[in-house]
Amino acid sequence: MVTRVAATLKDIFYPDSIAIVGASSDERKEKSGWTGTLLNFGYKGKLYPINPKATKVLGLKAYPSVKDIEGQVDYAILNVSASLVPGLLEECVDKGVKVVHIFAAGFRETGKEKGMRLQEEVESIIERTTTRVIGPNCMGVHCPESGLTFANLPKRGGPAALITQTGAGAGRIITYASGRGIYFGKVVSYGNAVDLDSSDFLEILADDPQIQFIALYIEGIKDGRRFFNAVKQCVREGKAIVMLKAGLTEASKEAAASHTAALAGSEQAWGALFEQTGVIRVYTLEEIAEQLVALQYIPPLQGRRVGIIGRGGGPGVIATEICERAGLKVVPYSAEMRAQLEKITTADAGSMTRNPVEIGVGRAGAQQGYADAFNIVASGPQVDFILTHLNPDAFVLYGGKPEWLNYSLDALIGLFRTLPKPVAVILPAGETPESREIVHQAWAQCAEAGLAVFRSYESAIRAISNLISYYQFKEVGRLLGN
Amino acid sequence: MVTRVAATLKDIFYPDSIAIVGASSDERKEKSGWTGTLLNFGYKGKLYPINPKATKVLGLKAYPSVKDIEGQVDYAILNVSASLVPGLLEECVDKGVKVVHIFAAGFRETGKEKGMRLQEEVESIIERTTTRVIGPNCMGVHCPESGLTFANLPKRGGPAALITQTGAGAGRIITYASGRGIYFGKVVSYGNAVDLDSSDFLEILADDPQIQFIALYIEGIKDGRRFFNAVKQCVREGKAIVMLKAGLTEASKEAAASHTAALAGSEQAWGALFEQTGVIRVYTLEEIAEQLVALQYIPPLQGRRVGIIGRGGGPGVIATEICERAGLKVVPYSAEMRAQLEKITTADAGSMTRNPVEIGVGRAGAQQGYADAFNIVASGPQVDFILTHLNPDAFVLYGGKPEWLNYSLDALIGLFRTLPKPVAVILPAGETPESREIVHQAWAQCAEAGLAVFRSYESAIRAISNLISYYQFKEVGRLLGN
Repeated sequence: MVTRVAATLKDIFYPDSIAIVGASSDERKEKSGWTGTLLNFGYKGKLYPINPKATKVLGLKAYPSVKDIEGQVDYAILNVSASLVPGLLEECVDKGVKVVHIFAAGFRETGKEKGMRLQEEVESIIERTTTRVIGPNCMGVHCPESGLTFANLPKRGGPAALITQTGAGAGRIITYASGRGIYFGKVVSYGNAVDLDSSDFLEILADDPQIQFIALYIEGIKDGRRFFNAVKQCVREGKAIVMLKAGLTEASKEAAASHTAALAGSEQAWGALFEQTGVIRVYTLEEIAEQLVALQYIPPLQGRRVGIIGRGGGPGVIATEICERAGLKVVPYSAEMRAQLEKITTADAGSMTRNPVEIGVGRAGAQQGYADAFNIVASGPQVDFILTHLNPDAFVLYGGKPEWLNYSLDALIGLFRTLPKPVAVILPAGETPESREIVHQAWAQCAEAGLAVFRSYESAIRAISNLISYYQFKEVGRLLGN
Repeated sequence: MVTRVAATLKDIFYPDSIAIVGASSDERKEKSGWTGTLLNFGYKGKLYPINPKATKVLGLKAYPSVKDIEGQVDYAILNVSASLVPGLLEECVDKGVKVVHIFAAGFRETGKEKGMRLQEEVESIIERTTTRVIGPNCMGVHCPESGLTFANLPKRGGPAALITQTGAGAGRIITYASGRGIYFGKVVSYGNAVDLDSSDFLEILADDPQIQFIALYIEGIKDGRRFFNAVKQCVREGKAIVMLKAGLTEASKEAAASHTAALAGSEQAWGALFEQTGVIRVYTLEEIAEQLVALQYIPPLQGRRVGIIGRGGGPGVIATEICERAGLKVVPYSAEMRAQLEKITTADAGSMTRNPVEIGVGRAGAQQGYADAFNIVASGPQVDFILTHLNPDAFVLYGGKPEWLNYSLDALIGLFRTLPKPVAVILPAGETPESREIVHQAWAQCAEAGLAVFRSYESAIRAISNLISYYQFKEVGRLLGN
């Protein structure tokens, strides 16, 4: 048995050369295969398509085997069926490939003898080599900076990383988040974790100065103590961690076992880990994205007291209730603040000057009142942060145009950085063909301006409540000298 | 004091004539005002714009006062500021108007002396007359069949009714729901409820054969016993009720008071009402819409055992966990069923034949396997209903087209009515300009075909879990002879 060498950031995310074992000789097919995807994404290193029957694949010289490549091969993608994996992995080992990504499924997760045996064969090969393996049964690595990827994902990187046992879920998180300014500098989908596990990737990213936020989707881990330490290491390095731990109910444990052959563990053990590490716990893929929006775009929050500006009336009552159920405080305003708010409203409905404050949001010409309301509410010593709610579909109902949204949005974007309190916007997806595009543009505009934007009160309040607990955990740790 | 006469369905929703007190003489303004909105919506009765300075408004003869109208006036909308309301209400009473809708805010909800006094004046007028009043501080009535409305809402009616103390919320619910086949035959936004209250509207709708589902947004009620009886009356008539009771936390109670001057009551009392009546409890406006989708489009469910078909992998594990946390059972399949499922899959990843079942959903040519999976899963005696998950954004990531969604959808729509078990679809909103429109079209297609479609696992599972409890409550009531 050889001494395994820890994989480095460069080994995993920045290989200088990649062999694609099992590139198709049918160019039309390979265009949307690994070779085409990497070329299209702009991979910067050397690409070696491997196919015994081809001399060229998409304009690149093809090789019958990795052994036939003249130079060094840093990274190989095994795009072959499970039964061919052990033999081809051996070839990669012989060639001295540093990292092999096994794309194929059909191993231990099948629960069948053939798959079990194949995974054992892979394990015994790994034991005898310094080559490190990602997978099997996974999408592998995405890193916009190096051009390595596994799908038509955004070419833009960012301070977020994603370590995941779901490839389909990775696509969902990245797509869902990208419209609101969350971009991933590093992603790794690692499936059955026959060799490299979440702990390895955490240890690697702990030292990556580009990464500030790490999201995890985990079904199982191999070494709890090591995982705990890797998490603590990332936290010490100032990185915020968001985690979805799947498979903690009866049937979902089974589902996790048949997805990645994972041993899911107990709610008790994982609950303790969340409590002791300050890792932010979420329950859906979309919540991962929402939490990253909160982490990246909301400055540190000092407390749970919220001022709400926007739709008063029924939506304001509901928002207040959601805040309270999540442990946020919708604080009453002083007589002085209410008098100031009174001055900037023309109608005489009382709810306008209480918390939530109702201004004629978004209507043409109303942007000054909207801006004034922010200045007044932000000045209140009883307010820690401000939530505001916009919804262009409401304009259409009363003969207005969804574009009126932009009056409020421009006012807010011009203003929010000058306020002494953080602001987050709730802006639900549009429900008409016109409002849909306007809302999506508005989300991008908020992200570009550095303003946190959420799709509903529930998602915003859940993410912000988590965020406050996170900052409190950090503060306690600082006081205790951790 | 006169004996108050109960308002009828005709009085509220089908007036033969409407006076718009305070129609603008500026035609451009009135086009998006009450007169323009009613003309545009196609109100079928006589419209009388009231404006002392105009002779015509949008082509209609204008009158200086309701008193100057020659014939009977069934319904009047008071579109004037609060301080003018008492005098103009008196005129309506003198004219013998049956129902007056007071649109203006600025009454008891302001918490100010002027508003309190104005509301008292209105109350004392009402005491002395048979005229019934909706409002103040509300949007009034929407009924596509008669053409009475308060906004640019869908002209299509349906078996759902909405009784609400939030006008803004009504717009949100109707807009959010309409894309998925939920249309409202009757809506009433009644604000401060100075006269007609939720109980009146429930009593009226209890006898309306067009209405099968009643959604309520309530901040406060005037007579708890009467409300309880009105709810029971609707339930006896076979109508399902969905209710959002707002204002049950500390600050939201305050918010409700300043919104509609409501006395919100206690969680204990309202919790008991939900338990004893089988009213389905929800917490957000969007949940009202989701619950109506479940009620209208899912046939009665016999139990909590679900079969999941669609995205397996991580999304399947998460879906399983959400189901279990909501008390649904993701049941294991028999060896026989798994063998049948095995036959229709080509790849050898084990998760495909367990529950959740993973089929190559949506890809071109995969519709047969998808259809076969439904037939096999629906035949399982351990399955009460099926959830399926589609997401066209996933195709784009791997070089496919979002239109591929339609292959699966067509297969499903052609099939679901022939299955022995109910089916619901989870189809999240698209995240790209192409997929957004394709998904919205797909929602409409599902609704047209009578297939329940939801935007997320969470929303579907919450609504379906509520639905099962509702049918259980009904079944117990039937057994007890209630």
